[in-house]
Amino acid sequence: METLKIAVLGTGPVGRAVAGRLAEVGHEATIGTRDAADTAGREDYAAWAADAASRGGAVGLSTFAEAAGGAEVVVNASGGGVALGILESAGTENLAGKVLLDISNPLDGSTFPPQLFVKDDDSLAEMIQRAHPDAKVVKTLNTMNNQIMADPQRLGEDTTVFVSGEDADAKATVTELLGAMGHGDVIDLGGIETARGPEMWLPLWIRINLALGGNDFNIKVVRGPSLRG
Amino acid sequence: METLKIAVLGTGPVGRAVAGRLAEVGHEATIGTRDAADTAGREDYAAWAADAASRGGAVGLSTFAEAAGGAEVVVNASGGGVALGILESAGTENLAGKVLLDISNPLDGSTFPPQLFVKDDDSLAEMIQRAHPDAKVVKTLNTMNNQIMADPQRLGEDTTVFVSGEDADAKATVTELLGAMGHGDVIDLGGIETARGPEMWLPLWIRINLALGGNDFNIKVVRGPSLRG
Repeated sequence: METLKIAVLGTGPVGRAVAGRLAEVGHEATIGTRDAADTAGREDYAAWAADAASRGGAVGLSTFAEAAGGAEVVVNASGGGVALGILESAGTENLAGKVLLDISNPLDGSTFPPQLFVKDDDSLAEMIQRAHPDAKVVKTLNTMNNQIMADPQRLGEDTTVFVSGEDADAKATVTELLGAMGHGDVIDLGGIETARGPEMWLPLWIRINLALGGNDFNIKVVRGPSLRG
Repeated sequence: METLKIAVLGTGPVGRAVAGRLAEVGHEATIGTRDAADTAGREDYAAWAADAASRGGAVGLSTFAEAAGGAEVVVNASGGGVALGILESAGTENLAGKVLLDISNPLDGSTFPPQLFVKDDDSLAEMIQRAHPDAKVVKTLNTMNNQIMADPQRLGEDTTVFVSGEDADAKATVTELLGAMGHGDVIDLGGIETARGPEMWLPLWIRINLALGGNDFNIKVVRGPSLRG
């Protein structure tokens, strides 16, 4: 696919993994943060950025608004609790008309295991879409650990990732990006309402993580004879 | 394993599939219903029972209380909305000290797609355990279609089933029954509280079902290199 300018909002493990991988497969990735000088000065961030660049995945760094304003695709890789605030900082005018790939999960960290602060009759993806009606929100990748988001083939076989969103072209773009990252089985669940499903998967993901003692797993939707093409 | 007397409460597709399969693999299965004469007289039930018997899976039929009273293991295969009432009809004294394998899902059929009438800070499995504190509740099998519950190998590879419950021996018994039915990957999530995970999976299961146009699928938890034995 053509090279895209992609802003990745969030400097945490998810943002780094996705931005690094998108740069590695040939896109122009810029991480958005609150204060770029502050982030650039953090030792762990600088070390990560240098390592990513040395592996052919150089990633820019800018404010939320500058990153989003200069991008064709915006990735929300922030924590669920701060996602709406960060997207507001990015500026709704900088999201308008663009693909907004949303990875965030509505986890309420005040309990353990975390519960969801929105679920079942609404979702964080829908809240984001309502807050930014001119963005083309596509929920995806929130169902797995960041290492697997960026490199699903480490699992040794194709596993499944979901997309939910109202705009077919936006889902096609996201599906192409997912394919470039190595995702071999993308299920289009339908409109943005269907994001309630992948978001409500988290409580089971967390308990599998605790039971297995690690997050190096993903699910594969195995089809039976009546669903094989 | 030794032959167990198993009561399966519920005459619907789940109860029939599980009772028939348990009988087929050598257990003494009895379906529990509100009015045994009425159920026996229903044409579709009689046809199913005759077919099951012809395939070596003859299944008894009795009231909820009689079936549970005569059983060593009780399976709740009723709909989520009626599960607590049916287990009350079965009699808490008939459940005491026994494995109570719970397959029910807390689906609220008044919306589409159905929402869950309990979730995240509680679960139907926990409600059942509180209502019958002397039963050894094990949540399992609620994450897949009944045809796959009974014959997971139709998928052509091992897929995953979860168990949640407080009693280790009860989970061991259930795990043995699952193995006899063909389930090759059983993940023990922990105590009964962990049933919140598999119950909250349903909204995603429903949306995958709608997207694929069928329920002939299950998930396989694919482990990465760091989780392989």
